Amino acid sequence: MTVATPAKQQPLNADELRKIHAYWCAANYLSVGQIYLLDNPLLQEPLRLEHIKPRLLGHWGTTPGLNFLYAHLNRIITSQDLNMIYIAGPGHGGPGMVANTYLEGTYSELYPAVTQDALGMKQLFNQFSFPGGIPSHAAPETPGSIHEGGELGYSLVHAYGAAFDNPDLIVACVIGDGEAETGPLATSWHSNKFLNPVYDGAVLPILHLNGYKIANPTVLARLPHEELESLFVGYGYKPYFVEGSDPETMHQLMASTLDSAIADIQSIQREARIHGFTKRSRFPMIILRSPKGWTGPKEVDGKKTEDYWRSHQVPFSEMASNPEHVKLLGTWMKSYKPEELFDQNGKLMPELGELAPRGERRMGANPHANGGLLLKDLRLPDFRHYAVEVADPGAEMAESTRILGQFLRDVMKQNLDSRNFRVMSPDENNSNRLNAILEVTDRTSTAEILPTDDHVAPDGRVMEVLSEHMCQGWLEGYLLTGRHGFFSCYEAFIHIVDSMFNQHAKWLESCIDIPWRRAIASLNYLLTSHVWRQDHNGFSHQDPGFIDVVTNKKAKVIRVYLPPDANTLLSVTDHCLRSRQYVNVIIAGKQPELQWLDMDAAIKHCTTGVGIWEWASNDKGSEPDVVMACAGDVPTLETLAAVDFLRCHLPELKIRVVNIVDLMTLQPNTEHPHGLSDRDFDSIFTTDKPVIFAFHGYPWLIHRLTYRRTNHQNLHVRGYKEEGTTTTPFDMVVVNDLDRFHLANDVIDRVSRLGNRGAYIKQIIRNKLTEHKQYITTYGEDMPEIQNWKWQYYNAPPVEKQGSSMIETDDGSTAPSEAGAEGTASSRS
Amino acid sequence: MTVATPAKQQPLNADELRKIHAYWCAANYLSVGQIYLLDNPLLQEPLRLEHIKPRLLGHWGTTPGLNFLYAHLNRIITSQDLNMIYIAGPGHGGPGMVANTYLEGTYSELYPAVTQDALGMKQLFNQFSFPGGIPSHAAPETPGSIHEGGELGYSLVHAYGAAFDNPDLIVACVIGDGEAETGPLATSWHSNKFLNPVYDGAVLPILHLNGYKIANPTVLARLPHEELESLFVGYGYKPYFVEGSDPETMHQLMASTLDSAIADIQSIQREARIHGFTKRSRFPMIILRSPKGWTGPKEVDGKKTEDYWRSHQVPFSEMASNPEHVKLLGTWMKSYKPEELFDQNGKLMPELGELAPRGERRMGANPHANGGLLLKDLRLPDFRHYAVEVADPGAEMAESTRILGQFLRDVMKQNLDSRNFRVMSPDENNSNRLNAILEVTDRTSTAEILPTDDHVAPDGRVMEVLSEHMCQGWLEGYLLTGRHGFFSCYEAFIHIVDSMFNQHAKWLESCIDIPWRRAIASLNYLLTSHVWRQDHNGFSHQDPGFIDVVTNKKAKVIRVYLPPDANTLLSVTDHCLRSRQYVNVIIAGKQPELQWLDMDAAIKHCTTGVGIWEWASNDKGSEPDVVMACAGDVPTLETLAAVDFLRCHLPELKIRVVNIVDLMTLQPNTEHPHGLSDRDFDSIFTTDKPVIFAFHGYPWLIHRLTYRRTNHQNLHVRGYKEEGTTTTPFDMVVVNDLDRFHLANDVIDRVSRLGNRGAYIKQIIRNKLTEHKQYITTYGEDMPEIQNWKWQYYNAPPVEKQGSSMIETDDGSTAPSEAGAEGTASSRS
Repeated sequence: MTVATPAKQQPLNADELRKIHAYWCAANYLSVGQIYLLDNPLLQEPLRLEHIKPRLLGHWGTTPGLNFLYAHLNRIITSQDLNMIYIAGPGHGGPGMVANTYLEGTYSELYPAVTQDALGMKQLFNQFSFPGGIPSHAAPETPGSIHEGGELGYSLVHAYGAAFDNPDLIVACVIGDGEAETGPLATSWHSNKFLNPVYDGAVLPILHLNGYKIANPTVLARLPHEELESLFVGYGYKPYFVEGSDPETMHQLMASTLDSAIADIQSIQREARIHGFTKRSRFPMIILRSPKGWTGPKEVDGKKTEDYWRSHQVPFSEMASNPEHVKLLGTWMKSYKPEELFDQNGKLMPELGELAPRGERRMGANPHANGGLLLKDLRLPDFRHYAVEVADPGAEMAESTRILGQFLRDVMKQNLDSRNFRVMSPDENNSNRLNAILEVTDRTSTAEILPTDDHVAPDGRVMEVLSEHMCQGWLEGYLLTGRHGFFSCYEAFIHIVDSMFNQHAKWLESCIDIPWRRAIASLNYLLTSHVWRQDHNGFSHQDPGFIDVVTNKKAKVIRVYLPPDANTLLSVTDHCLRSRQYVNVIIAGKQPELQWLDMDAAIKHCTTGVGIWEWASNDKGSEPDVVMACAGDVPTLETLAAVDFLRCHLPELKIRVVNIVDLMTLQPNTEHPHGLSDRDFDSIFTTDKPVIFAFHGYPWLIHRLTYRRTNHQNLHVRGYKEEGTTTTPFDMVVVNDLDRFHLANDVIDRVSRLGNRGAYIKQIIRNKLTEHKQYITTYGEDMPEIQNWKWQYYNAPPVEKQGSSMIETDDGSTAPSEAGAEGTASSRS
Repeated sequence: MTVATPAKQQPLNADELRKIHAYWCAANYLSVGQIYLLDNPLLQEPLRLEHIKPRLLGHWGTTPGLNFLYAHLNRIITSQDLNMIYIAGPGHGGPGMVANTYLEGTYSELYPAVTQDALGMKQLFNQFSFPGGIPSHAAPETPGSIHEGGELGYSLVHAYGAAFDNPDLIVACVIGDGEAETGPLATSWHSNKFLNPVYDGAVLPILHLNGYKIANPTVLARLPHEELESLFVGYGYKPYFVEGSDPETMHQLMASTLDSAIADIQSIQREARIHGFTKRSRFPMIILRSPKGWTGPKEVDGKKTEDYWRSHQVPFSEMASNPEHVKLLGTWMKSYKPEELFDQNGKLMPELGELAPRGERRMGANPHANGGLLLKDLRLPDFRHYAVEVADPGAEMAESTRILGQFLRDVMKQNLDSRNFRVMSPDENNSNRLNAILEVTDRTSTAEILPTDDHVAPDGRVMEVLSEHMCQGWLEGYLLTGRHGFFSCYEAFIHIVDSMFNQHAKWLESCIDIPWRRAIASLNYLLTSHVWRQDHNGFSHQDPGFIDVVTNKKAKVIRVYLPPDANTLLSVTDHCLRSRQYVNVIIAGKQPELQWLDMDAAIKHCTTGVGIWEWASNDKGSEPDVVMACAGDVPTLETLAAVDFLRCHLPELKIRVVNIVDLMTLQPNTEHPHGLSDRDFDSIFTTDKPVIFAFHGYPWLIHRLTYRRTNHQNLHVRGYKEEGTTTTPFDMVVVNDLDRFHLANDVIDRVSRLGNRGAYIKQIIRNKLTEHKQYITTYGEDMPEIQNWKWQYYNAPPVEKQGSSMIETDDGSTAPSEAGAEGTASSRS
């Protein structure tokens, strides 16, 4: 195996070499200036302590490498009129990204106060990592960035996400050798098995080996050359090496390497676009090995600094106490010869300014990096066409996500031509019962496909890989460049991307205050195969806590929906697909379940987000004895079954049933825009009646959302509590006390006037639970009366007041007959 | 590059071949039986519907491969007397793990009801994925397992964690090709750069390519042979290929491959142990390519099943409606010839039983897989020796984690010989200021080391890699095999391992009910570089939500500590290092901060976990006007500064200061063993006075923990709310309203009797905040009065009641003088 060899070793003539080097120097100068200077930006006066920031923040080490690459990418963009964006994996090199977008003019266009003159340069320096200024990392504030410099690991998946369905785009993606150690990055290299050169653009990964992290050597920098090469050949790339530190040699080598790499890309694309996709091609990648803190001070106070971890952040400080450091900074900055780079007024010399691409070809101004500019609405079929017929509540069964699959199929179909919608899943699309989507497209793969494979094709639009990180990262990249998507995942394992969600939500939060960032499509999660139905898998697959993580983020950017059945799921999903700039979390089961609302009712219910289910309640025209609230499909089922049980056995009890589909309605409206006013909340939940709340997730989330409400002290929540180890659906809720019997028991406990009658019913409940346990340990499935339970009251006549003494009595030693109650029920089972 | 070639192609003679095949058949038979059968375990009667479980659950596809490997590993353990454990990455192959530990006798020893006869076999079948039975995945209940089959991706890091410091141990680790797509697994291969054959055992990774996940082909199975080989050579291994489906050929190939691989390992170890470590060796790994659902039905209802994704779970069901399926199951199970494997009574034939290793050599009985058996207490120095001298509260400054580093250094030192303590960090050990540890050991690396590297050595015990996944996974593997560890991490990025924490916590939760599992050392996190002090990094590095994830798990296994200073941090850490079977989360900043408690007071405070700080309070002998509570170092500082401000300006106000170091004390004692009784809680927080609570994390966590407390409606919590974007420490708290001025303002708002005097102080507060903003945007650092603030009251005389009218007045238009208040303060600044 040999190293890929660049085409021409000396592509730059002397003048080109001089200029590209000067451009790099200018970017380096501006980067150092941002980290260090408050004033005297052009060093036209001798550098003094008062020109230097009192607190020195930011990261230098990675920056010169980022600047080197930016300059060379500019060159090839200009020479070949390329459409390219730049992703800085080492986003802590923020000063470099800012410096380059300033040099090319984008920065001043977006931030007019930061002019291209000495005053503007001073402002550029001042604002960096300064109160009221800009972050030290690449961030939403940074022109041309779709990638936050924060948690490392996602540059390459973002790059691929951006490249999908963008055939003209080349995404240059710098991957730090620290970042390369992360798990998500290590698997991201395999994204090349999902990229189709006919329809997709290209990613040019540039692994930047600068040898050190914060304090340690990096793993990849210490691999022998042949192992490193073997690794990337194994990942399916054609690796080019650019190694060294002598600027002249490195400029020539990088220029020739980029010429070759871009030629490789173009050749692969030409071939595929003329002859169609045949087999996965070996795309180029570049391994740049250059010193950390390149061009910075070689030593500080006698200690190795360049090409060492000491360059990672601010290479030296203690300016007030050490005048030598002030001198050293001056020498360092002067070494870039600012007087040759900028004119007296601080404007970049015209011959250098010419090196930057023009207009939208500038990487800071490329509209793909501000995806909202390119975003087009999805064409959406009318979701009402997919409605499950629900003649009466609970009369039908359906698998909610399977129904949703039909809607998503047609969403996919209607947007096939625009190529701006993809569905992601970690090998769970069919397990999550979204199979219908595969009627109109396939799963994506540009790897080997066997004739026996099931709906796998190089131009498939369902992206399945067993990595939640890749699904999430691809989708983020895809959305940030102005497209739409949908991510279905097992609920428990979405925690794998907690921190990626956090970063994306923070991105959206920051964008609220950045007027030039246009709104992008929301990130839509469907969490299914959820905690309550892990029949095949059990305890290890049970964790409903993702919404706890989600609700920590700003109300402005997050939405959580718990549709109780298929029609509400359709309505909610339609809403989410139309929305912008949110993270939408939808939680819905895939198993066959009773259906409650017809489409009209579903739309109404989803529009308000929370409501009294009159058809299930019997408190009409009066205050209820108890409110039974539920959020989530299984909790809704169990609540209705409890209501059924109670209405059979205690027909006089006035029960109000409340269902919550939009979880954010529970919060005060001062906390979340969807929140109910206290008045509305009180009118639904009462101000003093017991509320038994059956919740899909960990119970305390409901307390956290409602603790300021009037009636909070009467709220009793049942949810998941890490007690699930069993394998039948009903037993799962019994073990967590969220089942119909425990809920009914809660009601009896809290409605004090039930007396002995209540005690009698509680005995029935205990017997039921014993019977249940015996049955399942014998047969391994739920009792038929549980499995086949249906809602009885949908068409029952209003219950007449009879035997009210039965409820109010508090001393009878024998329990009254239940005949009356049974008699009013019209059973369908 | 050529494939590693096994030593001898036909190592098994005819009899050995027949027996090892039969042993494999027995394991397969028992695996199928677990998935399908309720009765008739030996198929001594014709198979009928009623012998089959009504609900069919579990996973077949990966199981025959796991069984094949188990049989062959047994062979080499026996032939070479190896000390080996088995990690099943595809842990959904639970039936295989159970079957093998049953065959070798371990299962019946640990679960005496599951005897090695027909009755026991029936019980073995019945219990599988059955209510009241065992999980379908490998789990804590599974003998010999240290690895939960749930979320995929961690088998290889667990394996390496187990191998570190276990020189005689070989960890056979099966990695599924689905699992191999995950990020954590993709980077785990690089663990070989951290394993030292002198002191560590070996990992034998076996990549099992069975081609399909739930519904998709796998990425690695579709790589061309030479790419796959190149990839693993690039990762630094010597790959052996075992490919095929013909059992006879495969048995010979696997046997000869294992002979070679073990010989390679032994040769590397011998060389290193005789001559010392010189350079990283190329350890063997095996790529087993075998059909998914191997030996299962080739087709079901005319559809391809063996060697296809349809084998993934239960390959066919619908038994009641399809009698052909019953017949198919019978044919399939009979194909293993149970009558030749088990005697009439259901006992494994003696000639097969002999194939299993004996005693603790059995992989199900190896004590390394029940690490508590091997666990020895750490030798701990007296943490009080590292105390910061605190003559008076707030008189000293210290970097808490730097102090802790000295303690950890000596913990490391005292346990160097026992080699049972490691420290993990994602390249942050020194950034987190635990530098002192490197005085007695180095960072681990068996990759190339340069002379300029700083404390990097092949036998270092500080494990740094830029992957939180690897740190966490290594540590889990290390703890589960009976050792101790400590993991320091930036607070925001610990979310990367949320889901790994969840899995480990569930493991511990499950162990509570498994008497034969011995308690292991707790998993100890130090979260530092925390949300409030991200000066270099800003918003992207701010997320204090890990504790929200942690507190979702069972109270029995989780502990959260927020020590406010160095001495409390020492006390808490000592406690955590002694504890067992918990996850301990300690949150403490690394920046220089004022120190509050001397060591005696710190120990007392940490022992109770929560307490009134009398020295900061002025409510002695009476009810306070307000309780100012705080949890976390920065909130404590701001609270005390607010108290200082209020006592200066409103000396008559009676303030009680409460500090919480053990967060779990806030929960009711019915919810958490550390929880305060309501009585104690009320006596500290009062039943009716306003409580201003300054909290390190998201504020609602405090509400969630306290919503049942008497005085909850008067609790006002300030914490982090996704508003932090700035770069000076004090501004960070101001932006989040957690600063001294907002806290003081809250008090004034809630103590109603302050009247105009309060209004006047509020005006001072507004001025201070304006002044602050102007100062930082000019100078980029906090105002001197903020930077240099110190606690004034530690030795102040008790404040005399004077001018109480000043507070009680409600109508004065001019504010009274502050001289009196200022006069009582003895300023140290």
